[in-house]
Amino acid sequence: MADAPEIARADAFLAELRRRTADPPGVSRASYGEGEQLAHDMARAWAEELGLEIARDFAGNLYMTLPGRERARPRLMMGSHLDAVPHGGNYDGAAGVVAGLTALGRMRRLGVTPRMDVTVMAIRAEELSWFPAPYIGSRAAFGILPAEVVDTVVRFDTGRTLGAHLAEGGHDPDAVRAGKRYLEPAGIQAYLEVHIEQGPHLVKSGHRCAIVTRIRGNRRFKHCRVLGEYAHAGAVPRADRRDAVLAAVEFVSGLEGMWVRREAAGEDLVCTVGQFYTDPAVHTITKIPGEVRLSLDLRSYDEPVLADCHAELERLAARISTDRAVSVELGEHTRAPAAAMDGELMALLRRAAGRLGIEAPELSSGAGHDCAVFATQRVPSAMIFIRNYHSSHNPKEEMAIEDFAEASRLLHAALDELIA
Amino acid sequence: MADAPEIARADAFLAELRRRTADPPGVSRASYGEGEQLAHDMARAWAEELGLEIARDFAGNLYMTLPGRERARPRLMMGSHLDAVPHGGNYDGAAGVVAGLTALGRMRRLGVTPRMDVTVMAIRAEELSWFPAPYIGSRAAFGILPAEVVDTVVRFDTGRTLGAHLAEGGHDPDAVRAGKRYLEPAGIQAYLEVHIEQGPHLVKSGHRCAIVTRIRGNRRFKHCRVLGEYAHAGAVPRADRRDAVLAAVEFVSGLEGMWVRREAAGEDLVCTVGQFYTDPAVHTITKIPGEVRLSLDLRSYDEPVLADCHAELERLAARISTDRAVSVELGEHTRAPAAAMDGELMALLRRAAGRLGIEAPELSSGAGHDCAVFATQRVPSAMIFIRNYHSSHNPKEEMAIEDFAEASRLLHAALDELIA
Repeated sequence: MADAPEIARADAFLAELRRRTADPPGVSRASYGEGEQLAHDMARAWAEELGLEIARDFAGNLYMTLPGRERARPRLMMGSHLDAVPHGGNYDGAAGVVAGLTALGRMRRLGVTPRMDVTVMAIRAEELSWFPAPYIGSRAAFGILPAEVVDTVVRFDTGRTLGAHLAEGGHDPDAVRAGKRYLEPAGIQAYLEVHIEQGPHLVKSGHRCAIVTRIRGNRRFKHCRVLGEYAHAGAVPRADRRDAVLAAVEFVSGLEGMWVRREAAGEDLVCTVGQFYTDPAVHTITKIPGEVRLSLDLRSYDEPVLADCHAELERLAARISTDRAVSVELGEHTRAPAAAMDGELMALLRRAAGRLGIEAPELSSGAGHDCAVFATQRVPSAMIFIRNYHSSHNPKEEMAIEDFAEASRLLHAALDELIA
Repeated sequence: MADAPEIARADAFLAELRRRTADPPGVSRASYGEGEQLAHDMARAWAEELGLEIARDFAGNLYMTLPGRERARPRLMMGSHLDAVPHGGNYDGAAGVVAGLTALGRMRRLGVTPRMDVTVMAIRAEELSWFPAPYIGSRAAFGILPAEVVDTVVRFDTGRTLGAHLAEGGHDPDAVRAGKRYLEPAGIQAYLEVHIEQGPHLVKSGHRCAIVTRIRGNRRFKHCRVLGEYAHAGAVPRADRRDAVLAAVEFVSGLEGMWVRREAAGEDLVCTVGQFYTDPAVHTITKIPGEVRLSLDLRSYDEPVLADCHAELERLAARISTDRAVSVELGEHTRAPAAAMDGELMALLRRAAGRLGIEAPELSSGAGHDCAVFATQRVPSAMIFIRNYHSSHNPKEEMAIEDFAEASRLLHAALDELIA
């Protein structure tokens, strides 16, 4: 294989990263924590080996640049994130940064000097598991992270704010609060992100990689709450109960009904209640439950569908609250925008795949990616998915290095056209 | 009020008991633990003041007896339990033991010697919260507690077996294992239990006390489990999901549907899912949930209704398991029998209420009581309920001493007829 030296380097890098951030089962790389920092340090060391220009913005994103012939031109960017969910897999995010460095390593080996600067960005804090706000690193780079996020959003495991973690890492929370822009959309010709697929499509279809067409947006309700009244399980008749579990069950059942109906009508939508729990300090088998907490994650390629669903769920919550004399509260929510990939870049990737004889189907992304931030900042953006087994955000996530190599060939061919 | 000295003593006893077993919010009296033992010690001290005969069986139940004129005759018994759920109320159980001692105190004061022995029994371990097996104390007294319960059932807070706690308390686990009988049904003329009502009926109807007609039996499933598969919340389409929350929601929704349908058909039934939780170590907002645990409590006055419901729920679980490619498992269950109160004793109580001008409606008991064990052992049994606010098994449980006094007058009048 022509790219063998870089692929071997990528494979070794990923193995070392897995070993050094292991947290059985799986790996943990906390956003603005030890594991993420270790990954940044490893990426920086590789970039130094390659003699790349290295920079860091005020939010701690890392930029590794191969200088081009015409340095005033808008640059090409590649990138992904280096954090990972608690006890997650090794490749979600990391594979994209490694693919970028692999591409620059190949250019170095071949003695290619690109027309414009080509930068690999190692992005901070993409995963929502640590801080409950989407795309912290990439939004901060563009100066569009709302100031209040810095001081109100706390990391679940430390209980400390994003601002405190930024300061601790030697970054500049004041610049983030002030909305300073490190990246200007006009200064970026295109953004390309390689990422493992987090769904089952490529495993089912038997392809090694895919060209992404669009990215789902989401609305997330992290702290939905149903309040009823605790009472004796045997002695209170049905009509007098204010059972929080039965009310929450009706709500989630209504949610699923809405999903099935909208799906049948051709709307794009996925809904997940990842958390649903009675209070372990109070609940018993012989007590009518007085409180339930649950989370809600709605995703769609279409913003209006998300808005409609939100409104419908508010009406459902109000109706159940009245019917059952309970209080069903959706609580605060966060939003991440839906985004379409750039048509010209997709065509470029299709052409490159055709030249190489790679069968790369088109796929939409159910999961969110930093690429959506670049796209909504009007940077022409595209993504390549790599086949991945056993979904992601879990220790069984599994990418074959041969699949990574094929996605890299596609990326290299596309870059060759862009940098000429 | 004629019974004023005993009522004042009862009031003071209950206040001291609340103070000495306080565990804010509410009180805690662990079965075979500190709080229960303290209550037993206080009851024994009062019995010693009254010069009663005191005995203890091998399971630690306490018997306080006013000797009768004809000691060979079957005795009259009163009683209830002295344990209380964690952070529960002061009166659930304790009010009945106190009512019994109040009645014997009044006989002492009036110089009445009953025809037969009259015994107040302070029963151990009635609450299921501590050990997940019903009626441990009263079943052990009759020698009908299954031997395996002694060594397999553990207290939730200590993780130690019932046998270990029996031994530690100075009781005799071997005798319990061997099914020795301390109480012979033939030696008991009648059993009367006073207890707070745990539902809202007397508060709603405005009566101070009620005559109980029957006690609900139950089937309890403490460890129902739904197993699906964890996966990424955005990337997996609906048809490929094995979502444990949606499956559990369909199960509980089906349970409620069954309940509504059977209630409309005139069947007696109450259903409670007191616990419902995703795994806090694994669940996140962005992960399709792979596991749910829940508890299930079914109660009815009719044993066949319980058996029918159980079978229907097994079918429902199997259907959902197939439809959703998950595993819905009901797991092990415990049973407590339904019981009818004795017709003659109920008539006696009605006559006594009539003589006293007390309006005491007839009420069935949704909650289980040790009285059900006496009834299923064919001891003629009856219960008096005292009005109680805010249900029970919670810190807000509230009984007025005036209501206790009226229930005591009714009890005394019934006893006067029985001991003559």
